[in-house]
Amino acid sequence: MNVKDLIVSCIHRSTLQVFSTMLGEELLLAGVATERDSQEVRDGVVSFVGLTGSWAGTGSIICSPEMACRICAQMLLTEAPAVNEEVLDAVAEVTNMIVGNVKNDLEPHLGLLGLSVPTVVYGRNFRARNARHSEWVVARFAWGDEILTVKLSIAPDSAKTGEGVHAASTSFGEPYALDV
Amino acid sequence: MNVKDLIVSCIHRSTLQVFSTMLGEELLLAGVATERDSQEVRDGVVSFVGLTGSWAGTGSIICSPEMACRICAQMLLTEAPAVNEEVLDAVAEVTNMIVGNVKNDLEPHLGLLGLSVPTVVYGRNFRARNARHSEWVVARFAWGDEILTVKLSIAPDSAKTGEGVHAASTSFGEPYALDV
Repeated sequence: MNVKDLIVSCIHRSTLQVFSTMLGEELLLAGVATERDSQEVRDGVVSFVGLTGSWAGTGSIICSPEMACRICAQMLLTEAPAVNEEVLDAVAEVTNMIVGNVKNDLEPHLGLLGLSVPTVVYGRNFRARNARHSEWVVARFAWGDEILTVKLSIAPDSAKTGEGVHAASTSFGEPYALDV
Repeated sequence: MNVKDLIVSCIHRSTLQVFSTMLGEELLLAGVATERDSQEVRDGVVSFVGLTGSWAGTGSIICSPEMACRICAQMLLTEAPAVNEEVLDAVAEVTNMIVGNVKNDLEPHLGLLGLSVPTVVYGRNFRARNARHSEWVVARFAWGDEILTVKLSIAPDSAKTGEGVHAASTSFGEPYALDV
């Protein structure tokens, strides 16, 4: 299994498990892709959490304001009529749990990883760009007629491996194929 | 010296040094504060980079679109008429260098820290919220008639210390005073 397939499988398992146990909801995997950072302008809610270690990167969840409110409502069993601080905290918590599980599942293959504190951004017409231009592994999940996107970008940390900055800009393929 | 004063001193030294050596510019410290996450709506450019270890948190830089373009122009010695990918990458690189230096200066006091990959957000009318509600140590620097803000939020990682989630919501004060 290469790193991309490993990440897809970790994201898939973790997302379904967190939604099932924390929100009592069953998601369906709707699609998988790899993407480079795009010029895409975003509306809605986007979270980020950092991963560090001999591999380093970022996990991210993207959803609509309505889905963010629904996550909060299901998690806290209260109404969430608009994207307020409680809603952003609920999205941060789901991000922490999903990417935290992925981190645990990746560690046997990539070495120990640290998980930072999630940041959640909400707005209209904003752009978010990751500094390292390695590929994102993107999994889309259907929740009713809405889509929740979970994505992860991770690459060997050039500062740790001493391979220079370009080692981090790799695509997921043969060079990092793993026996898993 | 307590943790807050230590962080201010690290941010101060690192920011002046990065601007001086990378951009050939002299910044002036214009103010220092501690802040909780606010409901504040932002316009402009905001970067985030995660710190992990037995203490975990986030470093962040906030500036206007004009200042982001100026950082890019000074760094690459080219014109940057609008906030494009090159400008966001320049802000990410400055974030990586400033927070990376702060990390190195904090490590003798807080233990080894990992640094994640910066994310840069650009837009109008967006909110960014950090999941853990510990205080930010905020330093503002004057660059001509504009202000560059560098801030850091870091607290003992409850997952590592086993002190439960509320250990992370501390303010910077006596409990974490250090002999430095």
